[in-house]
Amino acid sequence: MKLATLKDSTRDGRLVVVSRDLTRCSDVGHIARTLQAALDDWEYAAPRLQRVAEGIETGAQPTMRFHEHDAASPLPRAYQWADASAYVHHVELMRKSRNMDMPKDFWTDPLMYQGGSDTFLAPRDAIPLINSDLGLDMEGEVAVIVGDVPMGASVEEARNAIKLVMLVNDVSLRALSVAEIAKGFGFFQAKPSSAFSPVAVTLDELGDAWKDGKLDLPLRVDLNGKPFGRANAATDMTFDFGQLVAHAARTRRLSAGTIIGSGTVSNRFEGGPGKTVGGGGVGYSCIAEMRTVEALSNGTSTTPFLAVGDVVRIEMKDKAGHSIFGAIEQKVEAVTQA
Amino acid sequence: MKLATLKDSTRDGRLVVVSRDLTRCSDVGHIARTLQAALDDWEYAAPRLQRVAEGIETGAQPTMRFHEHDAASPLPRAYQWADASAYVHHVELMRKSRNMDMPKDFWTDPLMYQGGSDTFLAPRDAIPLINSDLGLDMEGEVAVIVGDVPMGASVEEARNAIKLVMLVNDVSLRALSVAEIAKGFGFFQAKPSSAFSPVAVTLDELGDAWKDGKLDLPLRVDLNGKPFGRANAATDMTFDFGQLVAHAARTRRLSAGTIIGSGTVSNRFEGGPGKTVGGGGVGYSCIAEMRTVEALSNGTSTTPFLAVGDVVRIEMKDKAGHSIFGAIEQKVEAVTQA
Repeated sequence: MKLATLKDSTRDGRLVVVSRDLTRCSDVGHIARTLQAALDDWEYAAPRLQRVAEGIETGAQPTMRFHEHDAASPLPRAYQWADASAYVHHVELMRKSRNMDMPKDFWTDPLMYQGGSDTFLAPRDAIPLINSDLGLDMEGEVAVIVGDVPMGASVEEARNAIKLVMLVNDVSLRALSVAEIAKGFGFFQAKPSSAFSPVAVTLDELGDAWKDGKLDLPLRVDLNGKPFGRANAATDMTFDFGQLVAHAARTRRLSAGTIIGSGTVSNRFEGGPGKTVGGGGVGYSCIAEMRTVEALSNGTSTTPFLAVGDVVRIEMKDKAGHSIFGAIEQKVEAVTQA
Repeated sequence: MKLATLKDSTRDGRLVVVSRDLTRCSDVGHIARTLQAALDDWEYAAPRLQRVAEGIETGAQPTMRFHEHDAASPLPRAYQWADASAYVHHVELMRKSRNMDMPKDFWTDPLMYQGGSDTFLAPRDAIPLINSDLGLDMEGEVAVIVGDVPMGASVEEARNAIKLVMLVNDVSLRALSVAEIAKGFGFFQAKPSSAFSPVAVTLDELGDAWKDGKLDLPLRVDLNGKPFGRANAATDMTFDFGQLVAHAARTRRLSAGTIIGSGTVSNRFEGGPGKTVGGGGVGYSCIAEMRTVEALSNGTSTTPFLAVGDVVRIEMKDKAGHSIFGAIEQKVEAVTQA
């Protein structure tokens, strides 16, 4: 089934079940008012929501139009958002450009940071640009929402705890990242609010594209209407989502509704760094990686970070060409600040 | 007023108003079922909760016994928990013991990490010890809960957004911290679930002990029934809570219910590192600082980290000797893990 949260006068919005083709939806307030409420009592809610989803497809269920721009992020705020960096060659590349060594255990022990989860942007909300010197960037990623995960869960238990999959634009301020990495306490100001796809889906909606805890489809990242990235989300993913969730649960249990991200989707090209879509590669899912490749090959980065008016679009299509999650589409807008 | 959350069959517990002396409480489900619900609509809830608090003191309000061990953390799960390290000489000391330089801007730009907020421990819950090699430690701290804070809020706006104050034991695994700091993505496995004091209080309950965004009272940290720390929470606090909240809100707004911590409370002794309570000083609020002082003075650390059976107690008393927030009291228990 496919689930979305419609914006309303409340902080957590209103849960709806969405048709497979994303055109219609049904209110399910009688089952769970919000997605968090459904996740809190998933054993109860999931089969009931599933029956609504079936009724939508057969025409037995009353529906209304679904508009992606009416949707908040599936969880407009969450109790946890932890983001990994599971495409490790991307990390290696970024470190190389900063003349930093790559510790060997980065290939065996996942990198993961604790993100801010109290104020997510909606998938069509503007990205606020406070200051053009901060190096505003998008990061196209896949994310999962889990149910309760016990402390010390195995990779298999962790994989089985995955309830929903969605896409995310992990908005980043590159000029602040470098200083925050050096301080050792992780990202904070460098990671303003992220936005998630209009729709989150259960694993059965992904068919055989969901394999061994990875999503085997290209992530479509467009910048100003042009293809920027088409990297496959399973290719070169060093750690699957089961390993990422288990990493997060090593020293404490995770509560239902925890979101775990993959990190920027990134593919190698012929064993080396990626190549632009225009140049015959699958491109990139963030500007920083493209700038890094430019710096390593030409000695200088030419692609600018995001500026006011730029539009980022992140989407994924199934093999028949239908959008699975709806599209994140965000315009960069200037914000004046005291 | 003083607020607490009683454990019940739900994930978020049940909000009660507690008497000033912590002996009695009143159910306030007709105003707000949970503390998060009260914070989500504070303008509505606060004056009504305040009237209940007044009724408890005058005897006009029906009450029941309040037992600290029935309380969950005031927010059993939260949308954000961000913890600073505002006693900067403590950071300097810790880095010195690791032969790390202290960047000058640590004195002007707060250190803050994003913590996990989805599964807090209750104030009397056991602290699970997975493995005795992980360097289990307590950190006695003060924390505030804010209302909505706009992006780019000034220090004064941030100070005015502070709704409640409480104590926290920020449980830490020191053996994992060092590696996680080196990875640059911040703490994750090194910071298992924290526990907060049974009661959170509004600023007016603190009287003139709340000054310029700091809490001017000693934090009482006991280990196995003996005084371990009596450091004053205002003394040597380099950044006040207004500065910490403003730091957190620099690049994105904060949602109501965000918790911001002070970091381990720590006082210098005669301009140098602290001294034990037994030795005439005010002691420490975590074991790591004591071990650091031992290593710097004797070349070796002798105080062990927490072991099974150890009991940590964290409390704060007003000038008349009455407990303000109730006590965090946690025993370390072994956990067997797959």
